[in-house]
Amino acid sequence: MYFELKILGSNSATPVFNRHQTAQTLQIENEFFLIDCGEGTQMQLSKYKVKISKINYIFISHLHGDHYLGLVGLISTMHLFGRTKDLHIFGPPGLAEIITVQFKYSETVLNFHVIFKVLETEKNEIILRLPNVTIETIPLFHRIACCGFLFKETPKKRRIKKELMPEGISLQAIAQLKKGEDILDANGAIKYSVEELTWPRRKSCSYAYMSDTSYNESYLELIKDTDLLYHEATFLHELEKRAEDTHHTTALQAAQFASKAAVKKLVIGHFSSRYKDLTPLLQEAKRYFKNTYLAIEGESFSISDE
Amino acid sequence: MYFELKILGSNSATPVFNRHQTAQTLQIENEFFLIDCGEGTQMQLSKYKVKISKINYIFISHLHGDHYLGLVGLISTMHLFGRTKDLHIFGPPGLAEIITVQFKYSETVLNFHVIFKVLETEKNEIILRLPNVTIETIPLFHRIACCGFLFKETPKKRRIKKELMPEGISLQAIAQLKKGEDILDANGAIKYSVEELTWPRRKSCSYAYMSDTSYNESYLELIKDTDLLYHEATFLHELEKRAEDTHHTTALQAAQFASKAAVKKLVIGHFSSRYKDLTPLLQEAKRYFKNTYLAIEGESFSISDE
Repeated sequence: MYFELKILGSNSATPVFNRHQTAQTLQIENEFFLIDCGEGTQMQLSKYKVKISKINYIFISHLHGDHYLGLVGLISTMHLFGRTKDLHIFGPPGLAEIITVQFKYSETVLNFHVIFKVLETEKNEIILRLPNVTIETIPLFHRIACCGFLFKETPKKRRIKKELMPEGISLQAIAQLKKGEDILDANGAIKYSVEELTWPRRKSCSYAYMSDTSYNESYLELIKDTDLLYHEATFLHELEKRAEDTHHTTALQAAQFASKAAVKKLVIGHFSSRYKDLTPLLQEAKRYFKNTYLAIEGESFSISDE
Repeated sequence: MYFELKILGSNSATPVFNRHQTAQTLQIENEFFLIDCGEGTQMQLSKYKVKISKINYIFISHLHGDHYLGLVGLISTMHLFGRTKDLHIFGPPGLAEIITVQFKYSETVLNFHVIFKVLETEKNEIILRLPNVTIETIPLFHRIACCGFLFKETPKKRRIKKELMPEGISLQAIAQLKKGEDILDANGAIKYSVEELTWPRRKSCSYAYMSDTSYNESYLELIKDTDLLYHEATFLHELEKRAEDTHHTTALQAAQFASKAAVKKLVIGHFSSRYKDLTPLLQEAKRYFKNTYLAIEGESFSISDE
């Protein structure tokens, strides 16, 4: 399973030091999910060679401009490039109105359908099930309605041990074994054993996106054991009060959260424009959670399923 | 008089080949006028070292995204940078609604006033008079309500010939001479002659911005003798039919217009994304109007008042 996060931008509020605002893609097999879409995202997609025609699902965490202002431009470009496929956009109440009013005044009639799913940001819910992945919201604690997104790969089937397959076994029986079910004979005894004839399931990959939010453990259990966690770390911990006032998180807190949730890897982002050098944020987080990385645009984080 | 146009972007429709969408600043003395504001304009302003705090007047030609999508991000950044000065935005009906709905959902209360002036795009009108410059609309012929902008420097005063100034002449008399009025004695005879004691007025600078539009000579007289004309030239003339259908202009037509209007210099822009190399557009225009330049982002066009 190809499961890779690519950072397109991770600055907060304003674009500075050549750092763009929040946007990232998660590639799961051949599907590219776009998560947040700050101003200039279409240029970043082009720069980092993500084909916009491959994006069918867009997730917007909240309606601060640095997380969605690139959306109308991106949709317009999809239209001009001749898209006909449906586009699914998940976002808080108001997003549909914002998009619709702009296409009304530009008198744009899109060649494709945009299907808005309005998110209820205050509770965890499954918002999309695809063959390879299930996506659910993570309620966040920001100044306005805001949620993160949890991508969980569909549990994998067990892999059969080909060399041990009995001659003449039916395809139906093999499918049953892959699901983890023993095959019984007429007397109810085990004829073909799952344990003997298959390898254990490979672990399913998971990714949690959490921006913007104040430090809050309410949904820690939901994130437990996630392979990869992107958590905002707007400030150094010396600005804890400022983080609290603005409903953001410090690098130290992001690392504490990652540690308590026992995630495998932490990527921090949503950097305040006051930090030209991001090293202190990384150092602060690494003291509490060693496996931490900076969300630098253009960088990718791959999750292996082995 | 410092009078300089700076190109921040001049691609049409979509950003490609590292070319941004339409935006430019006109600097007249210490005032920076922003004309159109495509996606990413705030990054372009930063890249080309125009301080956003110096922009007090923004002019939006029409509500196609490539001409205004950078506006909300720019206003947000002005807010975050602590602006308190009024901001004046001139644009077609609908622009205020588009901006307002976005700040409503982001729950942003700006630290400064945004004053919208709704443009009546179908007739020429003066929309702003400042001490140094008068700005009027140029009705354009596009698919939706659209107008250009004509910047005319306020007529200059005559300069006095200091070495010829009679002793004891009053400040009031000097002011009168600068305005071009002779000073008469009690009998109505010329006491101090404007012709003798002053130099002719320096020519006032002017700049006309015309994008997007089909070829149309209705307002040619308005543009007559303009120092600098920016005219869209979306296509080569071999695509004249396509230009007509989409209400755009070809490079040849832009040059013809410049020639008929007897402007001093022509800058062409709003290039179709189909042209990676812009040389053919320049060559085509130059055949009909020699003093033509490409609107390449980062380039400046200065107008001298000598």
